[in-house]
Amino acid sequence: MAIDFSQPPEVVDLVERTAAFVRDVVIPEEERYAGVVSAGGEALRARLQAAARDAGLFAPHVSREYGGLGLGMTARAPVFEAAGYSLFGPLALNCSAPDEGNMHMLEIIATDEQKERYLRPLASGEVRSFFAMTEPAPGAGSDPAALSTTAVRVDDGWRIDGHKWFSTGADGAGYAICFARTSGKVGTVGGATMFLVDADNPGLKVVRHVDTLDQAMIGGHCEVIFDNCVVPDSAILGELDQGFAYAQVRLGPARMTHCMRWLGIARRAQDIAIDRIAERRLFGSKLVELGMAQQMIADSEIDIAASRSLILQACWELDQGQRAAQSTAMTKTFVAEAIWRVVDRAIQLCGAAGVSGELLLGRYLNEVRAFRIYDGASETHRWALARRAVKQRLKATGALESAS
Amino acid sequence: MAIDFSQPPEVVDLVERTAAFVRDVVIPEEERYAGVVSAGGEALRARLQAAARDAGLFAPHVSREYGGLGLGMTARAPVFEAAGYSLFGPLALNCSAPDEGNMHMLEIIATDEQKERYLRPLASGEVRSFFAMTEPAPGAGSDPAALSTTAVRVDDGWRIDGHKWFSTGADGAGYAICFARTSGKVGTVGGATMFLVDADNPGLKVVRHVDTLDQAMIGGHCEVIFDNCVVPDSAILGELDQGFAYAQVRLGPARMTHCMRWLGIARRAQDIAIDRIAERRLFGSKLVELGMAQQMIADSEIDIAASRSLILQACWELDQGQRAAQSTAMTKTFVAEAIWRVVDRAIQLCGAAGVSGELLLGRYLNEVRAFRIYDGASETHRWALARRAVKQRLKATGALESAS
Amino acid sequence: MAIDFSQPPEVVDLVERTAAFVRDVVIPEEERYAGVVSAGGEALRARLQAAARDAGLFAPHVSREYGGLGLGMTARAPVFEAAGYSLFGPLALNCSAPDEGNMHMLEIIATDEQKERYLRPLASGEVRSFFAMTEPAPGAGSDPAALSTTAVRVDDGWRIDGHKWFSTGADGAGYAICFARTSGKVGTVGGATMFLVDADNPGLKVVRHVDTLDQAMIGGHCEVIFDNCVVPDSAILGELDQGFAYAQVRLGPARMTHCMRWLGIARRAQDIAIDRIAERRLFGSKLVELGMAQQMIADSEIDIAASRSLILQACWELDQGQRAAQSTAMTKTFVAEAIWRVVDRAIQLCGAAGVSGELLLGRYLNEVRAFRIYDGASETHRWALARRAVKQRLKATGALESAS
Amino acid sequence: MAIDFSQPPEVVDLVERTAAFVRDVVIPEEERYAGVVSAGGEALRARLQAAARDAGLFAPHVSREYGGLGLGMTARAPVFEAAGYSLFGPLALNCSAPDEGNMHMLEIIATDEQKERYLRPLASGEVRSFFAMTEPAPGAGSDPAALSTTAVRVDDGWRIDGHKWFSTGADGAGYAICFARTSGKVGTVGGATMFLVDADNPGLKVVRHVDTLDQAMIGGHCEVIFDNCVVPDSAILGELDQGFAYAQVRLGPARMTHCMRWLGIARRAQDIAIDRIAERRLFGSKLVELGMAQQMIADSEIDIAASRSLILQACWELDQGQRAAQSTAMTKTFVAEAIWRVVDRAIQLCGAAGVSGELLLGRYLNEVRAFRIYDGASETHRWALARRAVKQRLKATGALESAS
Repeated sequence: MAIDFSQPPEVVDLVERTAAFVRDVVIPEEERYAGVVSAGGEALRARLQAAARDAGLFAPHVSREYGGLGLGMTARAPVFEAAGYSLFGPLALNCSAPDEGNMHMLEIIATDEQKERYLRPLASGEVRSFFAMTEPAPGAGSDPAALSTTAVRVDDGWRIDGHKWFSTGADGAGYAICFARTSGKVGTVGGATMFLVDADNPGLKVVRHVDTLDQAMIGGHCEVIFDNCVVPDSAILGELDQGFAYAQVRLGPARMTHCMRWLGIARRAQDIAIDRIAERRLFGSKLVELGMAQQMIADSEIDIAASRSLILQACWELDQGQRAAQSTAMTKTFVAEAIWRVVDRAIQLCGAAGVSGELLLGRYLNEVRAFRIYDGASETHRWALARRAVKQRLKATGALESAS
Repeated sequence: MAIDFSQPPEVVDLVERTAAFVRDVVIPEEERYAGVVSAGGEALRARLQAAARDAGLFAPHVSREYGGLGLGMTARAPVFEAAGYSLFGPLALNCSAPDEGNMHMLEIIATDEQKERYLRPLASGEVRSFFAMTEPAPGAGSDPAALSTTAVRVDDGWRIDGHKWFSTGADGAGYAICFARTSGKVGTVGGATMFLVDADNPGLKVVRHVDTLDQAMIGGHCEVIFDNCVVPDSAILGELDQGFAYAQVRLGPARMTHCMRWLGIARRAQDIAIDRIAERRLFGSKLVELGMAQQMIADSEIDIAASRSLILQACWELDQGQRAAQSTAMTKTFVAEAIWRVVDRAIQLCGAAGVSGELLLGRYLNEVRAFRIYDGASETHRWALARRAVKQRLKATGALESAS
Repeated sequence: MAIDFSQPPEVVDLVERTAAFVRDVVIPEEERYAGVVSAGGEALRARLQAAARDAGLFAPHVSREYGGLGLGMTARAPVFEAAGYSLFGPLALNCSAPDEGNMHMLEIIATDEQKERYLRPLASGEVRSFFAMTEPAPGAGSDPAALSTTAVRVDDGWRIDGHKWFSTGADGAGYAICFARTSGKVGTVGGATMFLVDADNPGLKVVRHVDTLDQAMIGGHCEVIFDNCVVPDSAILGELDQGFAYAQVRLGPARMTHCMRWLGIARRAQDIAIDRIAERRLFGSKLVELGMAQQMIADSEIDIAASRSLILQACWELDQGQRAAQSTAMTKTFVAEAIWRVVDRAIQLCGAAGVSGELLLGRYLNEVRAFRIYDGASETHRWALARRAVKQRLKATGALESAS
Repeated sequence: MAIDFSQPPEVVDLVERTAAFVRDVVIPEEERYAGVVSAGGEALRARLQAAARDAGLFAPHVSREYGGLGLGMTARAPVFEAAGYSLFGPLALNCSAPDEGNMHMLEIIATDEQKERYLRPLASGEVRSFFAMTEPAPGAGSDPAALSTTAVRVDDGWRIDGHKWFSTGADGAGYAICFARTSGKVGTVGGATMFLVDADNPGLKVVRHVDTLDQAMIGGHCEVIFDNCVVPDSAILGELDQGFAYAQVRLGPARMTHCMRWLGIARRAQDIAIDRIAERRLFGSKLVELGMAQQMIADSEIDIAASRSLILQACWELDQGQRAAQSTAMTKTFVAEAIWRVVDRAIQLCGAAGVSGELLLGRYLNEVRAFRIYDGASETHRWALARRAVKQRLKATGALESAS
């Protein structure tokens, strides 16, 4: 035991190869489709994933048993960042949201049978999946007590009814992991359960794509209806009524992998800006040597470095088996705001070109804006963070005898 | 003479009527075309302008002689803000950029003949115009010495050659006001001249629309080529070699009218957010009563109020015939950043809906982003601001004997 | 009626003479006592006030009937700012807190008899006064319902009992205006009344000076005990139980005059910084021409300009007889934070000298820090601001039928 | 090799014991002297250091050979932070600036003889030392080329002449490490050399204490004159003309240990604020449950966590023998600003008490303000950071062939 910031050599090597792959194979496709991966559709996904597989870079987060590279959380950090250097990189490596988070959770809580049927084809890129959790207001969002989709016992299993939106990747997915209330009433936390629902279940309908600022997700952010959607007992993922606990299993790591990928975009934006202005001159001076430009460049370097350090620390805690609620919340909040600042500064550095389609920066701005809202809005995290910090302090001083 | 923040009754009345017109006539069209005015094209423009004319709201900034309402700068402030409450409002009132700024300048420096031929049809909405100034790097942008488009004397007038971009509204316009170097070499300020160039001049080609984050401008931001573009002597606007001075005539007021219009969008964003969250609850509390939401709402109110005050002050200076270089620069810099913060907070307040097409906030974010770059990037203004502030202080203390 | 940002010629003249007086007479004293006015004590106060009287600058805010210059709120703005350019300037002109606010209130609500006895000697500088309102937690501060000092009817008038702190200027004052509960229980707003209490009342004890970051106030911020403090009926200021309403009469204008005076210090800090670095060089460049320095200078200019505009607008509303609750709250919040930023930037611009006693900037930082807390903490104002903004919007749209 | 955020058990134990020592022994002294260590003077230093020695906590950064605990940089991080939880903690452990940095450097570059004479008594607390580097403008500060103190060869060694200020700890120190130019002219970098100068050298005079906002340093920040100060050849520390390189040896780690200690104060400020407001109520709600308070608490937690991670990473690089110029610069810049924000928020959370002497927060604000200027102003670091980032990027892309 001792502080160590070095990655094992095989991870260092993997990062380098990932970076090269993204540069040489992925970015040309990104530029071709102007940053909107769905413009290339499933054909593009297949082409990129085949190339990643050939390069030995596929599914870095999946265990070797299911065809992946078996990386833990701290090792994923630089690899996912390298993949995230292009909006299309994570898709190529099959480590994009929401599939990556779903694989992570399935490996931990699915039965062997469920793994063969749902995890294996997902890990191989044969199918995509989605996680049906968020509901239109006043349904489930930041507040679990608001969950209104229900699953009730019926003769041949469970009947799910509910209305979801922002179900990322739903269009074209092979199956859903649906989050439904199995006990308690709306307004109480009660019990929730996750169900595996095949996309061809007649009770499951993808209604429409929600039109959003971010557009890089294949399969979109969809509105989905579960209407008299009956599934067998074997569709239950994990144990009955334990859904909120499992969601935490998924959420903490998923927040970190989001951070890793978006940090790649932040690094990319900074590089685009430096490349762009390196040779330009203004009022007789090199633009990169003007103080206000240097301040923006320096601030972005600091934001990126602090993001990396925070991500690594939270990942290490997760790798130790800790819940890491405080550190993942702090990291997600900081990183979501930091990458926003980095991309915004990159645009400002590039001037008119920064808001033009000549560079991908405007596209990135729209992609990263939502990250301050998705996966827990910054305000929700701050609220939870502050409560935990106060409780922790008061317990340490003895001012608070016990805490829930 | 005494401080007075009250508008004359007729202006108050005009503001109210403009607000009602925007609410009842313009916003329904905006929602129909999701904030992209060009989707409705010239037909929409004609329809909205006819309605505004009928409502007695047309061309508020134009003198009565040319069919307008004859408002000075301070009176324009609340009227343009009310128009700007919709992205389509300024177009409806024929006071959107760049036409509004072009009318302002033509009234001041055109000959009577030029006014009849160019100002009258522009003021009436018969034609649109564009201002061809910005050039791709390393050409004219923040630095006037970089101007590379040239106009040289030929037998029958002047021959203009050059490459412009971000020529707003060029596609479909009736004529250009082209900014060209008539003396001095690139790298020196030299002398520039403005030329009125009819759109059907064979030497003028609108090459393409620059793909930009903002998309609300009819006629787009275009790349334009002047290639062996010959114009007669009568095409000269104002005096030879006085272009930079005239540009200042246009720029100061044009910056303020931009601020007014965008401030309308900021107010709109704040209202959309308040309306959206007024009845929503989170964790058992009303969202609008949560402290972090209140902080965002309060900060946006302050940003809007400070923007309004700064705009009024700068406009008053302009109405007094002052150049107002310092106050318009401070105001433009502050307001561009303030409205960006307001729109960003509105999105955050609305959560997932804020980044969805359900509300127009994402659209607004993209529209206002560019304003921190267009019409002088914030950094360029800060550079000029600081230099003037230092010079002014050193002159006051006698530390600086003379100043250029 | 029309927007006008010009001051009457006599105010312009007064501002110039005040600035000259501060520069020539007051600043030398400030530098001598390193910014701590109380180091010069009453002797310094007498000397400075005599000089101001001779210069015709004394008590600009007091009516001519009571020996002042009779300026309204908008005229006070530039005069108080000019006075505030030194920490000692407002004292010299007899327009420093809390006396200035007390005079303002006495002119409005005192009886003629009270005015002769309390206002006239205060306006002439013969005595000082204090306003005993704030109480140690959990007493009165931001929340009026917490008021715990009581005044109860006794045979010969009223008996006041209570504990106050942050009673500015109490040490050496001639009398107090004491805020006490005359109806309702702690925890309810109830009714409060203001009493004029002579300093030699045996029931009034100035216990100690609260040690605070800011130290420029003559008479300190004191802890004061009212213990069996009996006063006659004639001590009641205004009407019984109307104290909270009167406090508003005092608070709105008092917030603005605080802003004016502190804005003077912000301007001073900026000037000190510019003077300091004007000729210094770093890495071969003039410091004032380095981009990051220019950014700080420009941002401070903008902060000062926006503060001025906001102050003027709120003052104009007050002069119109409006309560101006929203605009004074917005202005106080913005200005308190803006001047903090300006002073902080000035220190940073000056480097090590900025944190040394060589310049007065460190002293100013400590003086202005408290302003974000005194007279309503920024958070309290934001809370109130947001509530009013929401209510106003919902009333405008008809979503809120009635409002308290 | 693998990412590891765990400290060895002996370090964890040391941190706990340090925290307990600070809480039980040091903080009572700090409260007694209101945060100004020099009020207790050398007697207090002796008392605290004896207690730390008894507790086995003394000189954690010094090698065992010289009586310390032999901690590397990463292990110092949590220990110094725990010590820094009181302004007096580092002094108690003999790990305060500038002695700690001087010991660090002496261990690396002094000869054995010099170590016995200068390092051993310093490590044991027998004497204090100072580092005479910074000069009044236009002398040495951020820009090494400005170094104006000279050392010239004389018969019996070297004669040093120059003017230093901000020589921390000079008053009462046993010796100086003086930084002097030994080749090249002012305005060029040239060569510098470090000299060990005994305090009783007649050519060395401590002129005065510079009056500064921060007052916690024993021995003050002094102005020092070297006037015909002759030292023997054996006074040279390291090699002739290598002073700038050695300064880097000292500066990188010294910046990090500053960050560690000040981070302790940030943590302390946050704890003071939480303790203070935990039970208070405002408008009927618990203050710690108000959203704006929660936001401040959460932001401070994030600032502290990000600071810790950045410090650890930079320390790890230093422990690996890297120069770590970029990471120490990023860390110093971020941490100096983060702790400033944390202390400022703590004051705001505590309201009027926050600016009063009842709490130590105002004292802390003044202590930490200077850290954004000392040891490289934030702007200087950002300038260097940006240049390195640009160079690194251009080298990576091949746009820059070679770099100095």
